[in-house]
This record gives sequence, C-alpha cells and structure tokens, in this order.
Amino acid sequence: MEEKEVAERVRAELSEARFAHTQGVVDATTELARRFGANVQAARLAAWVHDIAREWPRERLLQAALRVEMPSGFALIPALLHGPIAAGLANEWFGVSDAVADAIRYHTTGRVGMSVLEKVVCLADAIERGRDYPGVNDIRAAALTDLNLALAMSFDSTIQYLLLKREPIFPLTVMARNEFWELTREVRE
Amino acid sequence: MEEKEVAERVRAELSEARFAHTQGVVDATTELARRFGANVQAARLAAWVHDIAREWPRERLLQAALRVEMPSGFALIPALLHGPIAAGLANEWFGVSDAVADAIRYHTTGRVGMSVLEKVVCLADAIERGRDYPGVNDIRAAALTDLNLALAMSFDSTIQYLLLKREPIFPLTVMARNEFWELTREVRE
Repeated sequence: MEEKEVAERVRAELSEARFAHTQGVVDATTELARRFGANVQAARLAAWVHDIAREWPRERLLQAALRVEMPSGFALIPALLHGPIAAGLANEWFGVSDAVADAIRYHTTGRVGMSVLEKVVCLADAIERGRDYPGVNDIRAAALTDLNLALAMSFDSTIQYLLLKREPIFPLTVMARNEFWELTREVRE
Repeated sequence: MEEKEVAERVRAELSEARFAHTQGVVDATTELARRFGANVQAARLAAWVHDIAREWPRERLLQAALRVEMPSGFALIPALLHGPIAAGLANEWFGVSDAVADAIRYHTTGRVGMSVLEKVVCLADAIERGRDYPGVNDIRAAALTDLNLALAMSFDSTIQYLLLKREPIFPLTVMARNEFWELTREVRE
C-alpha cells in the first residue's frame, strides 16, 4: 500500500490533535532515519501507524490485546497495549515487514537490543515538534549527534515522570535505559 | 549460635564505620519488627549479617558469587552481589533459616512478594540512624505507620539516585516498587 493511503487510513482513526502529533513523528523520524542510517521509507511507515490505536477505549484495547503478539508484561500496564495492537493492525491492514512492526510494537517501551529503525521511531515520538516537557530540548540537542545518548536521556525522562506520578515503571524500559547508558559510557571511555 | 557470637563474628569482618551502620540497622530492624509483626529474633539476626561481605574487594565477591544461590540478574551489577553472598555465609557459618537468608539476600534490591521479615530488614537498612540523604526523614515518618508506603518511597529514592548517577537500575527493584505503590493505592482507594 502507498504511504499516502496509509496516512489517510490513519487520519480516519485519529483526532485532529493526535494526527498532528503523528505528522510530527513522521517528520522527526525522517530526519533521524537520514541522520543515523535507518531505511527512511520503513521508518516513515512505522511512524504513521505507531499511534493508530492510541485513542481506543480501554475495553477495545483489552479485547484486541488477545488477538495480537503481546510481549511479556505489556498486558499489566494498559497504557502500553496500543503499541503491540498497532503492530498487529499494521501487519493485517498494511502488510508491513516484521522490522516495521517491531518499531511500532516497542515505540513506547523500548527494549533491549533495539534496531536503528526501532530507535529512530521511539526517539522521534519523544521529541517531535509538538512535544513540550522539562528537558526535551536537551534530548533534541543530543539527538543531533548521538542516538544512544538521546534515548538514554529520553527513557530517564520517562522514568522520572512515572516516579513523580507514582505510576508503574515498565522493567523492560529500565533494561533498555541501562543498556543505552552502558553503550554511551563505552563510547566515552 | 547465640546472637552475641554472630555479632562478634560480624564485627571481625567489618570496618568500624560499617559495623556502626550494622548496629543501626539492628536497632531499626528491632523497632520495625515489633511495629509490623515480624519475628524480632530472626529480623535481628538478618540485620547483623546483611552487610558481612559489603567490604570485600570485587575479585573476592565475584569468586564467592559462583558458590552461592544467585538470583537472576544480580551478577550483572557488582554492587548487588554482597546480599546473596552474605545469605550464603549466614547459612554456612550461622545456620540461619531460609526466611532469614532471604531477608539478607534481597536487602539491597527488594523483590516482588516480600515477607514482612524481608521488608523490615530492607527498610531498616535505608533509614537507620546513620543514614542521611534527601527525603530520608519523610521515609522515617512513613515508617511509623505504613511499611509498604515507606518501602515504595525508599525504592523511589534509590531509583532517583541511580538516575542522577546514570548507574544501572535493577529491574527487580522496579517491580518491587511498582508492587508497593499498587498495594499502597489499594489501601487508600
């Protein structure tokens, strides 16, 4: 399916604000994919679809969760379901590759051993032009030169937020964050 | 073995400062065990032994780590090894029960589904009279009435510190922290 058709299908599923965020993520992903050497077409496709189920009510998410590949632990935190569900839909509706599906599946949580494609989509979601939270400009600055550092900072920002809110922190995100700081340290030492 | 003999054996293994910390943990553990209904004798024994390997050089820790029950992931973070190693020594030298060994084994990390004995030793280690860090008095105040809340706060403080230092965060600690906030929320709702 053409990218344009995917975009139109996504637009039909989202509020105006969420679609504007998605456009921001597509643009940021494109820039990051060029900068760090991911397949631009694949990265844009993942970006278009990443939030397609983001506005579904909890009941619909829980039902759909039973029909898609759901990595361990995701089902315990409802806010994480929309990634794997969007990955399933991307496969079913648009026939995306496994690499694109993984970038969609793990865009919120990250994971250990992320591909460059997964990294750029995950980071773009955190720093697209519409995002505004403490520290986002520092992450944007890091993203100009160091993908791993920017992701380490981005995950730390997420963990900080969840600490503040006393919300559950996903162990896989912590493992990803540990890995990115370790990679960053190795480069610097 | 009598508690007094255990304490003397521990004193022989530790610097003066670390032994003073241990005495602080024994006193805090005693208070918490009485308050929240753990076996005081068992709790004091775990407190005496918890840091017995804390001052070993890394090489000795890594070697000893091969000979004791080492829960998944501990070996990746050297700072966590002294708990399981002390649990092994407590068993070998002093013949402690499994419940006491677990309180020693998980005193730094916590884990999901902690016993009251494990909780009081872990919390005592964080709030004994010698401890001084941002927020410790808030945790002490919580510990007067709510063991789970105090532990949730204590783990969050640890995670905050590790974020600040860009040090690895142990996933099991995050899972324990998530559980304590969930338990605390259930009580309040």
